[in-house]
Amino acid sequence: MASIQDSRDDREISLDRVGVTDLVYPVTVPDRANGTQGTIATVGLFVELAQESRGVHMSRLVEAFHASREMPLTSENLESILAKLRAAVNASAAHIEFEFTYFTERKAPVSGATSLLAIPVGIEATLDESFDMTLTVEAPVLSVCPCSMEATGGPAHSQRGHVAVSVRIDGRMWIEELVELIEDSASGPVSALLKGEDERSVIEAAYKNPVFVEDLARNVAERLDSDVRVHWYRVEAENLESVHDHNAYACVERQR
Amino acid sequence: MASIQDSRDDREISLDRVGVTDLVYPVTVPDRANGTQGTIATVGLFVELAQESRGVHMSRLVEAFHASREMPLTSENLESILAKLRAAVNASAAHIEFEFTYFTERKAPVSGATSLLAIPVGIEATLDESFDMTLTVEAPVLSVCPCSMEATGGPAHSQRGHVAVSVRIDGRMWIEELVELIEDSASGPVSALLKGEDERSVIEAAYKNPVFVEDLARNVAERLDSDVRVHWYRVEAENLESVHDHNAYACVERQR
Amino acid sequence: MASIQDSRDDREISLDRVGVTDLVYPVTVPDRANGTQGTIATVGLFVELAQESRGVHMSRLVEAFHASREMPLTSENLESILAKLRAAVNASAAHIEFEFTYFTERKAPVSGATSLLAIPVGIEATLDESFDMTLTVEAPVLSVCPCSMEATGGPAHSQRGHVAVSVRIDGRMWIEELVELIEDSASGPVSALLKGEDERSVIEAAYKNPVFVEDLARNVAERLDSDVRVHWYRVEAENLESVHDHNAYACVERQR
Amino acid sequence: MASIQDSRDDREISLDRVGVTDLVYPVTVPDRANGTQGTIATVGLFVELAQESRGVHMSRLVEAFHASREMPLTSENLESILAKLRAAVNASAAHIEFEFTYFTERKAPVSGATSLLAIPVGIEATLDESFDMTLTVEAPVLSVCPCSMEATGGPAHSQRGHVAVSVRIDGRMWIEELVELIEDSASGPVSALLKGEDERSVIEAAYKNPVFVEDLARNVAERLDSDVRVHWYRVEAENLESVHDHNAYACVERQR
Repeated sequence: MASIQDSRDDREISLDRVGVTDLVYPVTVPDRANGTQGTIATVGLFVELAQESRGVHMSRLVEAFHASREMPLTSENLESILAKLRAAVNASAAHIEFEFTYFTERKAPVSGATSLLAIPVGIEATLDESFDMTLTVEAPVLSVCPCSMEATGGPAHSQRGHVAVSVRIDGRMWIEELVELIEDSASGPVSALLKGEDERSVIEAAYKNPVFVEDLARNVAERLDSDVRVHWYRVEAENLESVHDHNAYACVERQR
Repeated sequence: MASIQDSRDDREISLDRVGVTDLVYPVTVPDRANGTQGTIATVGLFVELAQESRGVHMSRLVEAFHASREMPLTSENLESILAKLRAAVNASAAHIEFEFTYFTERKAPVSGATSLLAIPVGIEATLDESFDMTLTVEAPVLSVCPCSMEATGGPAHSQRGHVAVSVRIDGRMWIEELVELIEDSASGPVSALLKGEDERSVIEAAYKNPVFVEDLARNVAERLDSDVRVHWYRVEAENLESVHDHNAYACVERQR
Repeated sequence: MASIQDSRDDREISLDRVGVTDLVYPVTVPDRANGTQGTIATVGLFVELAQESRGVHMSRLVEAFHASREMPLTSENLESILAKLRAAVNASAAHIEFEFTYFTERKAPVSGATSLLAIPVGIEATLDESFDMTLTVEAPVLSVCPCSMEATGGPAHSQRGHVAVSVRIDGRMWIEELVELIEDSASGPVSALLKGEDERSVIEAAYKNPVFVEDLARNVAERLDSDVRVHWYRVEAENLESVHDHNAYACVERQR
Repeated sequence: MASIQDSRDDREISLDRVGVTDLVYPVTVPDRANGTQGTIATVGLFVELAQESRGVHMSRLVEAFHASREMPLTSENLESILAKLRAAVNASAAHIEFEFTYFTERKAPVSGATSLLAIPVGIEATLDESFDMTLTVEAPVLSVCPCSMEATGGPAHSQRGHVAVSVRIDGRMWIEELVELIEDSASGPVSALLKGEDERSVIEAAYKNPVFVEDLARNVAERLDSDVRVHWYRVEAENLESVHDHNAYACVERQR
């Protein structure tokens, strides 16, 4: 039986993206230390809809994704999954989005105590005439305010911040590389476990390296500028200001 | 025509609360400085359902609430609204919940610059044989860590925290009273607008008054213990730790 | 005293946007029926930062916005507020973002019972060499699935959906116009209060007008195409599928 | 060196719970089909604080939990973890909370196509003089409105709902048991993947079994009443009404 989705549409309006959002699914992602890491993603599956078609058989998108769900999310595999989505509904372009938590191990600086740090990660990929992929990594950081430090001659306000870096790259980049790049750009890293001696060490180091949210964004951008793999980036730094109930924010986007 | 809701149910299971949630509506709340303040609430309207009744005519709850929506949310008016909910569907008990943002004006300590601070507030009220009401006020605060201050001999980590106080009272209490009580229990207040000289003053004062999250909770509890109007309270203090990506938390609940 | 923000930065990296996010403030917005409507917005205030400047005096952005907070958010007033932000920190460009809830009154189709419907609205505006503004209105809708209706020969699954329309316009457009345009594109409107006879009427009408999420997006786009004021739009339709735990989505963006 | 946390507090206020919240960590949970399942939890770790102690060494809670993170979250292991938390800071009581996503496999009713369904699960456990544990499972469901079906003589509005069941039990209960119990209490199950023939089958079955949100809660309660393992339960059912922008809700709590 011909279904309604396959009937002809006369409104002459093609749709940029049609598909499913908020699909929660287990996925496997590349892990520098361990090869791969299993995690849970919120997934969006989309295709372009030609103007003459009434609708998309969305169950075919879910079916194709389900069949591919154990493939680690490398760029090669993403391109292959997108090709399957496109083929499943006979579309000219497909797009896929993932948001997941990625864990990296942390060693405390003095005690050496280990703990895990949860990193929010996003992947977006599109396949039309060519393949395009964006990786977004968000790491928590410690920031000490240079202004208040100067004003008081010592004590400053500090706060937790979050820096999200999105990149388009030639070649390969590990999630861990972006996490380290962000942490190196801040007053200091944050971690789940610091013994008393670690906390003291982290704070003393951070006070030697106070940064505005503007500095955070620029420090990250400077490092990305010097990485030949990166041909586009966007940096968003946000500090949960401890003296305000709003956040301080800085953003920079660059195309090589 | 008799509707299905009015039919008899034989399962012999009464329901504690039946009604609507996530109703977003404009409401009016008492304001110490200005008499009343208009705001927007997420509202829950509930009644008890007797075991012999199949269902509640939920539209009657919305209709009764809509008719009362301009009444300022004093305890007297809440009791009156609950009586109307109960009458609308012939129930033996009714319960109502509000969550809204309340604004208070702040003056910066040195410059005197004014700004507004958004305070999350909750009200819950129940009418069965008697009337009961709980007011919850959550204020943002600045906390400086005593431990890191002692360890380094000066520089400490600080962070934004949030303290939520819930009270059951005899008589009346302004939202502002709880905000002030919370701020007095912290290293310092936070506000939307601090000029350079204000920020310096706030930080210097905060470093003279470092508090653990445990201190925050106890300082608030101590003040509530000495307020004769309060016959029950719960205090939840939470610090957005600047050296961690998790929060520090303390809670105490007391019945007089 | 010269502050650190005013010092020179040698990294040669200008920042696209620097400012504050998550500032919660009362605002006033234009209302077709009543002239203006007071509401509460989450606000972002941003300026461009030239590469030679170390930082932005963010308190000046908050101060300038606070002084303008009672101006209704018309395009003229937004341009004026942006000019003040820019002047406050001597920047070449400023950007502002608002997200708020807007209420419209609804009359039930048969009983005529009135209730209020909460509409999420966003406004973004930029001032650099020219002024640019985007209005986003999101309305809830009822959608009945054409496919399941055909398959069963009657009973279909229905669900709540949300359609977000963003427009750039010449001239003026009321929030209500976009709400009505969205509702006319769906199987039917949703509202806070429907008596029994209203619910029957809404459902019978909706079953005569089943729509896929693709239809929803195209119906809205078709109406926007025929409005000469609109020179750019984006439509995002999302259905909270009742037979799935994910959403169905369609998006179309057009530049005239 | 004696730390400040170990100093004496004279305020004579013991704290019910002190610890960390929003710690995101990988955990392992019992899985009926596969023995265990790895997932990611948001974790809270708490202890009671005696009135004479100034503070808790929170890093010791994280350290103890990290060391136990690979133990599957059975009641035996939870009791053991709680004993370690208690010992780590010399407390008289400990409490732990987990929220995570659990996956179950679904087969479509006609096509047999398989997909995964994400189930939000919560576990809370306390160890003081005795051990107590609560399991909460939330499953999405399809609900068809009996009232609109009767009014129109056929077409009805349907919507996605969520039912959360919390239980205290003697013995053991699989997460899957509660999911199945919830689905059997609704108009029908929801799943990630339904082919055309499956969707038709699900809808036809659902229309033979229309339920109010009140029915949903009672159907679940009735099944729990007949399970001898359950000595306390709370059922919360919530329907994302397709003709409203608010939810319909019913709740019942019972102690055996």
